[in-house]
Amino acid sequence: MENNTSKKSVIEKRKEVLTQLENLGKQFYEQIERGTFPWIQMPSRSIENIYYSPELRQYILGNKTVRRSARNIRHIRPFTQLVWAAYFAHELAKNRKTSTLRDVYYSAQAYEMSFKDQPESNNVITDLETVINASREDFNIFPEERSAVFGDLTIEYTVPGYEGKRVNLTSHPDGVMIGPALTSSELIETSADKVIAIEKGGLFTRFIEEQVHKRFNAILILTAGQAPRATRHFIHRLNKEFKLPVYIFTDGDPWGMHIAMVIISGSANAAHLRELTTPDAKWSGVWATDIVNYKLPTDPLTDMDIKRLQELQRDPRYKERLWHREILTFMKIRKKAEQEAFSRYGLTYIVDEYLPAKLEETK
Amino acid sequence: MENNTSKKSVIEKRKEVLTQLENLGKQFYEQIERGTFPWIQMPSRSIENIYYSPELRQYILGNKTVRRSARNIRHIRPFTQLVWAAYFAHELAKNRKTSTLRDVYYSAQAYEMSFKDQPESNNVITDLETVINASREDFNIFPEERSAVFGDLTIEYTVPGYEGKRVNLTSHPDGVMIGPALTSSELIETSADKVIAIEKGGLFTRFIEEQVHKRFNAILILTAGQAPRATRHFIHRLNKEFKLPVYIFTDGDPWGMHIAMVIISGSANAAHLRELTTPDAKWSGVWATDIVNYKLPTDPLTDMDIKRLQELQRDPRYKERLWHREILTFMKIRKKAEQEAFSRYGLTYIVDEYLPAKLEETK
Repeated sequence: MENNTSKKSVIEKRKEVLTQLENLGKQFYEQIERGTFPWIQMPSRSIENIYYSPELRQYILGNKTVRRSARNIRHIRPFTQLVWAAYFAHELAKNRKTSTLRDVYYSAQAYEMSFKDQPESNNVITDLETVINASREDFNIFPEERSAVFGDLTIEYTVPGYEGKRVNLTSHPDGVMIGPALTSSELIETSADKVIAIEKGGLFTRFIEEQVHKRFNAILILTAGQAPRATRHFIHRLNKEFKLPVYIFTDGDPWGMHIAMVIISGSANAAHLRELTTPDAKWSGVWATDIVNYKLPTDPLTDMDIKRLQELQRDPRYKERLWHREILTFMKIRKKAEQEAFSRYGLTYIVDEYLPAKLEETK
Repeated sequence: MENNTSKKSVIEKRKEVLTQLENLGKQFYEQIERGTFPWIQMPSRSIENIYYSPELRQYILGNKTVRRSARNIRHIRPFTQLVWAAYFAHELAKNRKTSTLRDVYYSAQAYEMSFKDQPESNNVITDLETVINASREDFNIFPEERSAVFGDLTIEYTVPGYEGKRVNLTSHPDGVMIGPALTSSELIETSADKVIAIEKGGLFTRFIEEQVHKRFNAILILTAGQAPRATRHFIHRLNKEFKLPVYIFTDGDPWGMHIAMVIISGSANAAHLRELTTPDAKWSGVWATDIVNYKLPTDPLTDMDIKRLQELQRDPRYKERLWHREILTFMKIRKKAEQEAFSRYGLTYIVDEYLPAKLEETK
C-alpha cells in the first residue's frame, strides 16, 4: 500500500513548527515595541482543566487559560524560561540537531538559565508544547528510551546525510531502533494490513522467527515495556497514514493492561496533544480471561498489583466493557500471567494458536 | 579491514555445540548400556571455587568439581533437569529457533519437567554452559534485553531466511538492534579502527548525529545501561576478530564504573566462560577526576552510591591504579555526574572536546 493520505509531510510539519516558534518571538518583540510588558496566554494544564473526552477518546484540556506576563514579578522566572526554551527549540530544529529532556536541563546552564531541577525544565518544555500546539519531538527533543520495529515498511529519511534515502524495515532481522531518524521519516509504502505491538523483547524475536510479519501481514513493534512517546507517535502514524488496525499484546497484569491503554488513549499529562494516541487500537491480550481460558501458569497478584487495579478502576477510560470485565476478572482470580507462559504448550503455540484466535476476537 | 583472523566461523561454532550436546547424550546412553547409573562430572561453580585470574584478567573456576549421579536420590532432580535442558537446547539449536531464560522456564512445563521457579531453571542452564563449555547464546538462549549498534561494519547473516545476505550497519541512522540475528552473524569487513561503547540512548544519538563514526573511525555501541550478554559478546568479537581497541563511556558514578568493568572483565557468575570479556577495553569516562577537571554539574552521592563504592573497593579488579584512584576521588568529592552534564558547555562539547581528549588519554 502506498501512502496516499493527505497527511502533512514530515518536512512541511518541521517548517510549520519553525514558523510557529518564530512567530512566538515576533509576538514578544511587538509587545515590547508597543511599550507593554511581554506576555503570553496558554491553556491551563492544571488538574481541574483536564477532562476525558468520549468523542476523542483521550484526555483533553478544558477552556481555562493561564496568562504569564513579564510585568508580574512571580511570572518573570517561568516566562523567561519559556522564552529561552523556545529559542533553544528553534536552534535545535533549525540546525537539525536532536536532544533529550535531560540534555535540555544541562544545556540551560550554557546560557546561564537557571532551573532548580530537571522536573522544572521538563515542565517548561511541556508549556512550550502547549503554546505552539506541537509535541516536543517536532522541535527535536526526543525520549532517551528506544524501542524497535520490524516489517515490510519502506521509509524515506529526512535526517542530514540520509535525505531521500529509502530503506525497508525488514533489512535487519533483529529489528531497527525507533529513534529520531525513523520518527522523522516519511512513511512511503507497506504491504502490511495490520500492526502488532508487543511488550517484550523475547516475544518480539519469537514473532520475527515465526514469520508473523509474513503469515499475518503485520508490522511488528517492540514497545519494550511502556511505549516511549516516539513509539506511540509512530503507531499513531501507521494507523492514520495507512489506516492499519493496531493490536497490542502485553503481559496479563495491570501494568500490561495500562501499556495498552496508554498507546490507545495517551496519558493525562499529554492532554494538550493529539498525535500520541491511537483510539482504535485494540488490547488483544493477555487478558485475565485468557489466563482462565488457556489455563496459563500464573503468579499471585501482589499488593501493589491490586492497588494498581483499584486505581485503574477509578479511571474513566476503564469503564468500558472489556476493560471493566478484565479488571473484575483479575480481582476475582487474584492471578497474573506473562506472555511467555504460553510456552507451556510449546514455543510456537502463541503464534500458531493464540495469536490468530485473538486477532479474530478483537477485530 | 577484512576479517582475516583465524576465528572460528559462527557456523562451525554452531555445529560444534550441536556435536557436544549429542556427545553428552551418547555418554549417558553408554553409561546405561554399561549397566551403571548415568552420571556427570563438572567444574564446581560454588563461591569457594571462583578465583580472579590476573593473567586472564577475569574470574575463573578453580579445580573443584561436582559429580551428579542418577544413583543418588538427592541428585535425581537436578540431573534430570540437566538432561532435559541439554535436550531442549539441542532442539533449539537444531531447528535454529531462539529462546530466552524465561521461555525455557515455561517451556519445561510442556515436557512435564518441574522447576520450582525461574532461578532454578536459570541455574540448570548455567550448569549446561559449564558442562559443554559454551555460552547459552551458542545454543540459542538469548537475553531478553536489547541494545544497539551503528557504524561501518558489514555483517553476513546466518539466520533462516537471511543466509548469506549482507548488510552494512550504517543502514539505519538510529542504529540496529543487537539480537540473535546480529549475534549469530559473520563479521565481514569494517573501516573502523575502534569501538566506542556508550551507556545512554540520548548520547548514542548525539554521537551518530555528530558523525563520531566518521570523525573518529568508530563503531558505536549503545549498552543501554548494563550491557546484555549478547552485547558483551559482540564487543568481545569486534576486539578479537578485528583487533579493534574498545573505549567505554558511562555516567560518572559507581554504577557507570561497573558497567565498564563488566564489559572488561565479566562477572563472577560467568566465571566458566571466556567469550564475554574484553580485558583490553578501556573505561574512558566519566571519571570522578573528570568531574573535578571539567567542573561538571553534579548531584551528591546517595547512601546507596557510597555503599556500592565500598563494595567495589573490596573487589580484586578494582585494586588497579586507575580504578583505585577513581574510587578514592568519588569518596572524597562525594559527588557524581551524568554524561549529559557536558551539555553545560554546549551540545557538541562532549564530541568536540571531551571525546578526543579522553580517547587520547586512555589509548
